[in-house]
Amino acid sequence: MGSNPRIVINFLKEAHLLKGLVRTLSSLGERQAIRLIEQILAKGGSSKFLGDDCAAIDLGPRYLLVTTDLIARQTHMPRSMAPYQIGWMLTAVNLSDIAAKGGTPLGLVLSYGLPPDTTEEFLKEMTTGAMTCARRCGTRIIGGDTKEAADVTLCGTAFGLVKKTEFMPRKGARPGDIIAVTGTLGKAGAGYTALQLGDPRPSLTKALYEPWPRLREGPLLARRRAVTASMDLSDGLSSSLYQLQELNHVGFTIDAQTLPVSKELAALTRRHPGIDTQRLLLHFGGDYEILVTMPAPRFPQVARTLRRQGCQLTRIGTVTRGRKILVRDGPKTSLLPNEGYEHFTRHPWGPLP
Amino acid sequence: MGSNPRIVINFLKEAHLLKGLVRTLSSLGERQAIRLIEQILAKGGSSKFLGDDCAAIDLGPRYLLVTTDLIARQTHMPRSMAPYQIGWMLTAVNLSDIAAKGGTPLGLVLSYGLPPDTTEEFLKEMTTGAMTCARRCGTRIIGGDTKEAADVTLCGTAFGLVKKTEFMPRKGARPGDIIAVTGTLGKAGAGYTALQLGDPRPSLTKALYEPWPRLREGPLLARRRAVTASMDLSDGLSSSLYQLQELNHVGFTIDAQTLPVSKELAALTRRHPGIDTQRLLLHFGGDYEILVTMPAPRFPQVARTLRRQGCQLTRIGTVTRGRKILVRDGPKTSLLPNEGYEHFTRHPWGPLP
Repeated sequence: MGSNPRIVINFLKEAHLLKGLVRTLSSLGERQAIRLIEQILAKGGSSKFLGDDCAAIDLGPRYLLVTTDLIARQTHMPRSMAPYQIGWMLTAVNLSDIAAKGGTPLGLVLSYGLPPDTTEEFLKEMTTGAMTCARRCGTRIIGGDTKEAADVTLCGTAFGLVKKTEFMPRKGARPGDIIAVTGTLGKAGAGYTALQLGDPRPSLTKALYEPWPRLREGPLLARRRAVTASMDLSDGLSSSLYQLQELNHVGFTIDAQTLPVSKELAALTRRHPGIDTQRLLLHFGGDYEILVTMPAPRFPQVARTLRRQGCQLTRIGTVTRGRKILVRDGPKTSLLPNEGYEHFTRHPWGPLP
Repeated sequence: MGSNPRIVINFLKEAHLLKGLVRTLSSLGERQAIRLIEQILAKGGSSKFLGDDCAAIDLGPRYLLVTTDLIARQTHMPRSMAPYQIGWMLTAVNLSDIAAKGGTPLGLVLSYGLPPDTTEEFLKEMTTGAMTCARRCGTRIIGGDTKEAADVTLCGTAFGLVKKTEFMPRKGARPGDIIAVTGTLGKAGAGYTALQLGDPRPSLTKALYEPWPRLREGPLLARRRAVTASMDLSDGLSSSLYQLQELNHVGFTIDAQTLPVSKELAALTRRHPGIDTQRLLLHFGGDYEILVTMPAPRFPQVARTLRRQGCQLTRIGTVTRGRKILVRDGPKTSLLPNEGYEHFTRHPWGPLP
């Protein structure tokens, strides 16, 4: 079996690991892995928005938006998460990327990788959660795939449409722009911390398990044609800012006092004083809000438009020419570390509760 | 932790398993699981082609075709499969579904679920394989996702366009139609058997590992507007016929002598006499040919059109009114059993080599 490439690879891997020559994903990290993939894919024909929340395909006056997200039991599903909520989340995280580009969803397909001992009940509940989330968001699940896998590994792909003139890319932020966020922050972080503290009440965990994609806010923002850059906050604020920094060659100054605190995080802090609220606000992912930049003079009018529709938009800082990402907290200004979760390498929030 | 739904479910599962009340996927099987999912999704808004190879979204004169396929290490990747081939296969199996509907691909997105000890080399080779397959098929990978998972679990989603008047659905076969297949059969089966026999020469395994989606044949067939039903042969001939039977309320009579034997299967039989060739031809999946039905008078002209383009189309039987699926082999006619691979339940080909 000398010609078995798997065995050869494993052999080379072990031999080279001794010499530190073979890098694995646990040393590369998620972002570096994505960069490697993008470099290879670029050889197969460049895509205008590779690395954005969604891929965008030219359909004349509109873009077809496509986005895919994979969630796995060991990294995305705390033990207390119900199957219904797993299906809901799989759907919501994909629709959130469509929302962040200003798009209206056309539908989703879902692929389930499941172990053979998965119960019929689990399958039904999960699918009901996915179907319900899609329906509440005005769209539907139109197909999928179900296969045997070592552990629960689920993949969703959402697609939607947006007028080319209204597409909100990640790239486009300019020094002097303001940076703003829809809704509130720390919802998912509050739920996660509550679980870690053994306090899994639904009022604290619902937002973590059943995130709400901003499908109303996204198109409303897009139609105002003021947004210069946009992405969803699935990775948390600091990680998102670092991604925007790299892509836009700009910096940011965030005003910590202005960060809109979710009612979940406020409730958690009341119940468990001593929680590091600011760390959760700045670094915890899973909130699925939209982070946007726009010229400062446009902000008041855009915020008013959203407010009239019952949507909150909060200015949290400015885009700067210097490449640093700073946090101002009263009189104190400090460098914002990049402490968000990163697959394969950085798990700053401890083991999944 | 009495409120932990996972634990409650596990408890109920164990309690009920004793009484045989909880069904798992290993007793349901893949097809029954898919039926359950479809019933639930139908409540969220019906989709015209739910259960077809692709979902089809109305875009005016055309359908946007969307299909998703998940492959997992333990079920899809024999040990001797190179990372390049894994990427190739992930891309090819999705493009095959677009081809079977007569579509032209617009692009793909790929999601990788990978263990942290995956090497950089594996990631690069796999992505290169995917990119190369897409490019050779005249399309490209336009985005994706990379996440930590327990084992290699990959999901591809392909999308394409087809004129509504040329869309080839699974449903539409009529008694009296003939049934035909592109290319040859037993390519993947020959490779798999060669691996099991410890004879993994590339000339035998390449077709198993690097299937070629019929993206030229699909649109050619569609343009003739003769096809009444179409699906790809990923699940093997018998499984595909049973799926068409259920959907179309028809039967089939297959003439075993007409099945087009691949050069791989012929070579394997020469090297290893005693191989059950007919079992591989009738039941083994992974060939990614297109199976079509059409009115008998149309066949000669359609076959000629394809032949002129270098594509083979072989008539292998007829669609019948009686719901039975029969195989005629010389003077002998027998019922074709449904012996194809089925995820979760039926693994008739033994452990993955």
